[in-house]
Amino acid sequence: MSSTTPRRRLNINNINPHIKAAKYAVRGELAVKSEEYRSYLQGGLTDLPFDQVISANIGNPQQLDQKPITFFRQVLSLLENPTLLSHEDVLLNQLGYKPDVLERARRLLKSVGSVGAYSASNGVPAIRQSIAKFLEERDGFPANKADIYLSAGASSGVNTLLHVLCADENSGILVPIPQYPLYTASLAVLNAKCVPYLLDEARNWGTDLATIKEANEKAKAEGIDVRAIVIINPGNPTGASLPEEDIRAVIDYAQQEHLVILADEVYQTNVFVGEFISFKRMLRQLQKENPGKYDCVELASLHSVSKGMVGECGHRGGYFELVNFDPEVQAEIYKFVSIMLCAPVIGQCLVELMVNPPKPGEPSHDLYRKEYDGIFNGLKERAMALHKAFEQMEGVECGSPQGSMYLFPTINLSPKAAEAAAQEGRTADEFYCMCMLEATGVCVVPGSGFGQKEGSLHFRTTFLAPGTEWVGSIIKFHQEFMGKYR
Amino acid sequence: MSSTTPRRRLNINNINPHIKAAKYAVRGELAVKSEEYRSYLQGGLTDLPFDQVISANIGNPQQLDQKPITFFRQVLSLLENPTLLSHEDVLLNQLGYKPDVLERARRLLKSVGSVGAYSASNGVPAIRQSIAKFLEERDGFPANKADIYLSAGASSGVNTLLHVLCADENSGILVPIPQYPLYTASLAVLNAKCVPYLLDEARNWGTDLATIKEANEKAKAEGIDVRAIVIINPGNPTGASLPEEDIRAVIDYAQQEHLVILADEVYQTNVFVGEFISFKRMLRQLQKENPGKYDCVELASLHSVSKGMVGECGHRGGYFELVNFDPEVQAEIYKFVSIMLCAPVIGQCLVELMVNPPKPGEPSHDLYRKEYDGIFNGLKERAMALHKAFEQMEGVECGSPQGSMYLFPTINLSPKAAEAAAQEGRTADEFYCMCMLEATGVCVVPGSGFGQKEGSLHFRTTFLAPGTEWVGSIIKFHQEFMGKYR
Repeated sequence: MSSTTPRRRLNINNINPHIKAAKYAVRGELAVKSEEYRSYLQGGLTDLPFDQVISANIGNPQQLDQKPITFFRQVLSLLENPTLLSHEDVLLNQLGYKPDVLERARRLLKSVGSVGAYSASNGVPAIRQSIAKFLEERDGFPANKADIYLSAGASSGVNTLLHVLCADENSGILVPIPQYPLYTASLAVLNAKCVPYLLDEARNWGTDLATIKEANEKAKAEGIDVRAIVIINPGNPTGASLPEEDIRAVIDYAQQEHLVILADEVYQTNVFVGEFISFKRMLRQLQKENPGKYDCVELASLHSVSKGMVGECGHRGGYFELVNFDPEVQAEIYKFVSIMLCAPVIGQCLVELMVNPPKPGEPSHDLYRKEYDGIFNGLKERAMALHKAFEQMEGVECGSPQGSMYLFPTINLSPKAAEAAAQEGRTADEFYCMCMLEATGVCVVPGSGFGQKEGSLHFRTTFLAPGTEWVGSIIKFHQEFMGKYR
Repeated sequence: MSSTTPRRRLNINNINPHIKAAKYAVRGELAVKSEEYRSYLQGGLTDLPFDQVISANIGNPQQLDQKPITFFRQVLSLLENPTLLSHEDVLLNQLGYKPDVLERARRLLKSVGSVGAYSASNGVPAIRQSIAKFLEERDGFPANKADIYLSAGASSGVNTLLHVLCADENSGILVPIPQYPLYTASLAVLNAKCVPYLLDEARNWGTDLATIKEANEKAKAEGIDVRAIVIINPGNPTGASLPEEDIRAVIDYAQQEHLVILADEVYQTNVFVGEFISFKRMLRQLQKENPGKYDCVELASLHSVSKGMVGECGHRGGYFELVNFDPEVQAEIYKFVSIMLCAPVIGQCLVELMVNPPKPGEPSHDLYRKEYDGIFNGLKERAMALHKAFEQMEGVECGSPQGSMYLFPTINLSPKAAEAAAQEGRTADEFYCMCMLEATGVCVVPGSGFGQKEGSLHFRTTFLAPGTEWVGSIIKFHQEFMGKYR
């Protein structure tokens, strides 16, 4: 190429190598291909062996069947158009708005001003106050609005926390495997070290302290400055719901090993077995039982409007609470979030509605309860039905559903299938998932996108899609796949 | 401290040093203090010498006087609560919604699905299509929806682009001085090099090619890998609106020097003098005039719903368009934005409304036009009134308002004032602005927060606040300050 031939400044070999290194399979090749299929189908193409695409690759409830909760959306409509509040009679008598909807909208507008204005960098003070109250009621321990930071979904909160935690390329963060790839992708972008620890599939994907210890010791021996441990509870992609003893053990280990705890608790209401126990509650409990000992264990706990029965992913609302953090460090976190100005304000309002829903006796309560329970029971039923299907499938093993929005079955594939995958330059689980998409239109994510124990294969599927037809098509595909590569 | 005394894992000395190094004065000490004053006043404290806080530190129109545009918010209210659309008669005949509001809401819902669902990582396809159409009409050149990426305000777009551009600590980006501190703060966090070039205050803060050249050559001589040039047009904090010859000269220089152009064009409708000329239009024009020569000049242009007559900062809506980028690089940008899932969907819808407002003859057009023009004229009048006040003030020099939402006057302070500032450990402009806040409740940002030519002092103020009382209080403060430190 002559020196006068124009060429671009940026190419794949000279951009930020850490972006290149990041992997995010949840929206990777399979997801892109599934969207292409969707376009074909919308365009009327009929030579595909399926007539709809099921996006079981991502926890996106409202893209599938889940309806928004009426109370939330009624309040948001008034926040977007406050002039409606001057038509109280019409709202109440013709549009089915209840008085508490109007009252809540007025109260939020009073503290927010316009939802079109920037809020304080860490979020609207009154909304942080409301979150603090929720946390106090949930955990039975005080919470302070000054320790709460609104974020654009939990993802943006994780991004903030990892940015502050990782000082250089030697900083390490313990991350569960399998994990939601936000963690490994963010650490790759930050050029910090992911220190993987395996979850225990045999024990319903619980945390195994011996494994965590081993991973930490190995990393330390390699000179890595291990700073924090990530826990996703209930689990993504595993669906696990941690028992109290696992949580206590992790906090105790964090205390001994001087680790910050990042507790990703966005699925805290998606629990089918037992009850959700927050890290905050357990930490405060341990502080109470052992005066002094745990007072410097730092915990950041994240929550979101995207999951649970709210399912409002598109609104990008979330928050994190910091426990036992140094005020000087918190000031740096405040500055960092200021650079992006503030979380979406309507999303902040939705966080307020989530943590402070209609109470028994209030006009909107009965409908709220009915919708909430309907969604919860629907998710549970679908999880059970999908699990039952997996139990029938040859070479598929899957623990019974405990929580979150996912099942993460093991698949045992033949050497012949592994060979066919290798010929396409794919791992066996990628190959399996691609074949499933091509045959059925169902998009799931291969286990390799989350990390899995060497030699094991999995895929993650949500159980959000309605109906049973798609489950039937997976069973049929699986039989044919197993037959073909026997 | 004994080894058994608990201590925190994170402190100001071991967190990410690049976060510590970042500065963001727009929401810094003065802003925090002004919010404290606001709380005092709300709490009924009356020993302050003012009875309201005026936040002239940040371009946040709806926090001050600017009302949202009716058409936009009516549509958004229907997107939040689509069940309202089944009450067409009530909407049209009792609530003042026009048929085109309903029609737009239905069309958006058809392409978006629920605003509570994640969209594609780069944004809803139909909204990107609408933006492409807007760009074609604005510039007279084709635009492709595949090159458009929705973002959470322009800030998040800048963050994405700088992340991809900066490969290591030796990567340099030419940044205008004075500048909106998002750029220097983001580069500090990324640990990349800011290569400052001074704007020409004598020429209405235009770009001076000789200065850019000098800055670039100096950086290259120091071994810095200069990769891109940032242009903010209309200017922030300067208010400058660039003439065509400046834009052509920058593109030409970028072509010669192999620089990516980052054009921050969020104030494109806030232009009082002449007309806004986009970098995209000029680049395509140059490509047309000189076949081949400019085909590899890469441009990223950013826009937002936060500014202009829209002023919807809290909704965090924005987009960027990539021109002449390598498809492989675009794929990495897509992956990077995927990690945060998607921009807020209701903000994306607002972008669509901004780029595709009611047209003449459509039912909502007249009111839209009236509101839009009212805001534009109000801003212009306030800019002129503030400018007039500055002209009367001793030692203050300020070019006449051209665009954006800011004035950035020079202040000439006495050595005595500089001494008093030094005693407080402040720069003279910081000291001046702090005194102004304490005396008047008006919060502005010292020029040092944006960078300024050595030896010169400035402050940035928005002209968003209504009324003239606050301007009078600045004049009075200034007289007293000049008297005291004569």
